[in-house]
Amino acid sequence: MTATLLSCGINSDKSILFQQSRVSQHVELCWVLGSLTTMARLGHLPQFKEKSARLKEVPLGIFIYPVLQAADILLYKGTHVPVGEDQLQHLQLAQHLARTFNNRFGETFPVPKAIIGEDSIGRLKSLRDPLKKMSKSDADPRSRIELTDSSEAILDKCKKAITDFTSAVTFDPRERPGIANLITIHSMLSGINPEDICKENAHLDTGKYKLVVAKVVEDKLSPIREKIRDLMSRPQHLEDVLEEGAEKASSIAELTWQEVKTKIGFKLS
Amino acid sequence: MTATLLSCGINSDKSILFQQSRVSQHVELCWVLGSLTTMARLGHLPQFKEKSARLKEVPLGIFIYPVLQAADILLYKGTHVPVGEDQLQHLQLAQHLARTFNNRFGETFPVPKAIIGEDSIGRLKSLRDPLKKMSKSDADPRSRIELTDSSEAILDKCKKAITDFTSAVTFDPRERPGIANLITIHSMLSGINPEDICKENAHLDTGKYKLVVAKVVEDKLSPIREKIRDLMSRPQHLEDVLEEGAEKASSIAELTWQEVKTKIGFKLS
Repeated sequence: MTATLLSCGINSDKSILFQQSRVSQHVELCWVLGSLTTMARLGHLPQFKEKSARLKEVPLGIFIYPVLQAADILLYKGTHVPVGEDQLQHLQLAQHLARTFNNRFGETFPVPKAIIGEDSIGRLKSLRDPLKKMSKSDADPRSRIELTDSSEAILDKCKKAITDFTSAVTFDPRERPGIANLITIHSMLSGINPEDICKENAHLDTGKYKLVVAKVVEDKLSPIREKIRDLMSRPQHLEDVLEEGAEKASSIAELTWQEVKTKIGFKLS
Repeated sequence: MTATLLSCGINSDKSILFQQSRVSQHVELCWVLGSLTTMARLGHLPQFKEKSARLKEVPLGIFIYPVLQAADILLYKGTHVPVGEDQLQHLQLAQHLARTFNNRFGETFPVPKAIIGEDSIGRLKSLRDPLKKMSKSDADPRSRIELTDSSEAILDKCKKAITDFTSAVTFDPRERPGIANLITIHSMLSGINPEDICKENAHLDTGKYKLVVAKVVEDKLSPIREKIRDLMSRPQHLEDVLEEGAEKASSIAELTWQEVKTKIGFKLS
């Protein structure tokens, strides 16, 4: 995971990269925030409803996870959080908890704002069923392209991507979701807009066009794959990056936590 | 609280006395244990049912508190826990979590056993309503005797304790719960059994007997009250006791937590 993030361009000099479990203040603050929220509020969160409906036994972790997410943000006094649409309600919980804490114990946390990008992840569809989202938790690995896929796997997955029985390369997400999905992938990786891609490839049928998409994906992912391989061969370096990150994160987290403890009365000021 | 515990006889050389919030591993282990339990199991705990039934909005803390209690025990690999009857189900949760963790990640925690004493606390009844338990959370302070009550307050509360219209001093908890409760208090503080107390005080009516009880309570509590006052005048000493306790507790807690982290894969072994 660390190797992948670094390979995709996260710069550990600019960003603090660390394992949450190395910074105990996350769960400490989570406990305090948990005391400020109600079971009804957590039970109404759409993600919880959706996940718990599918399970016979609901692990407690699923229920309280959004409170930990709020602690993850507030511990660093985060002001802006990039989220997908599906995480918006969880951010609203974090905003609610920031306001509740501030009202009760004095101004402490900024109320974090959402940055909702064009939800590009949501726009990528499964290669096996273009009506479903592409997802890392899909049971069928052929439904998605992974950053560590080999050239052969990429080629194979693109060639076997489900499209329809029309052979022209046209961009019509509603009527032709399969081919539109491949064009979207192509567009996102190349920065060329879908209309221009269709013009450029008007002479190809979908079968041939899949090979073009496979090449675009391969060209984009092969340097990342190489970097991942290189980093994975140097585990001590990865450990060092995480260790340094944990130290930086802890020192910020500790400041907030001491402030919280003083305000709620866990500690003599 | 610290002053009270020390005054009642807790010896900080033999016992580790510390504030839970000073040892972050409690909530860290709580999070891990929370992932091993289900919402249904917590929802069925009688204390949760009883407390949540009375509330319009149920704070999350009430729901997950038993998991923190389990962490409190398992973090120190506790083998025996003195509990009142009302806490037995919570201890059973701790036992279940110890077994679940051991089965999943290898032998780690002893399964803690309950030590159920004669539930003396449960036997003490409210001075205002002898059918209810004496409780520190009762709205009416005259319903209970507090360790820091003045001599005057003790006398007043005993004199005004609700009894019945029979004036003889007899021990019949079912038919005469009010006077029986005073005799129980007398018995617990003096070590004399209720029958002997009735014999000794057969010449008194209940009004006069209340003065005898007040004296027994006062004689038992006044040295404790003095010690509390003395300790409260030395806050630095109390801080030192807690600081030393937190250090001792942390060093044990950290050993367990490192072992847990290694076993669940939060950490390279």
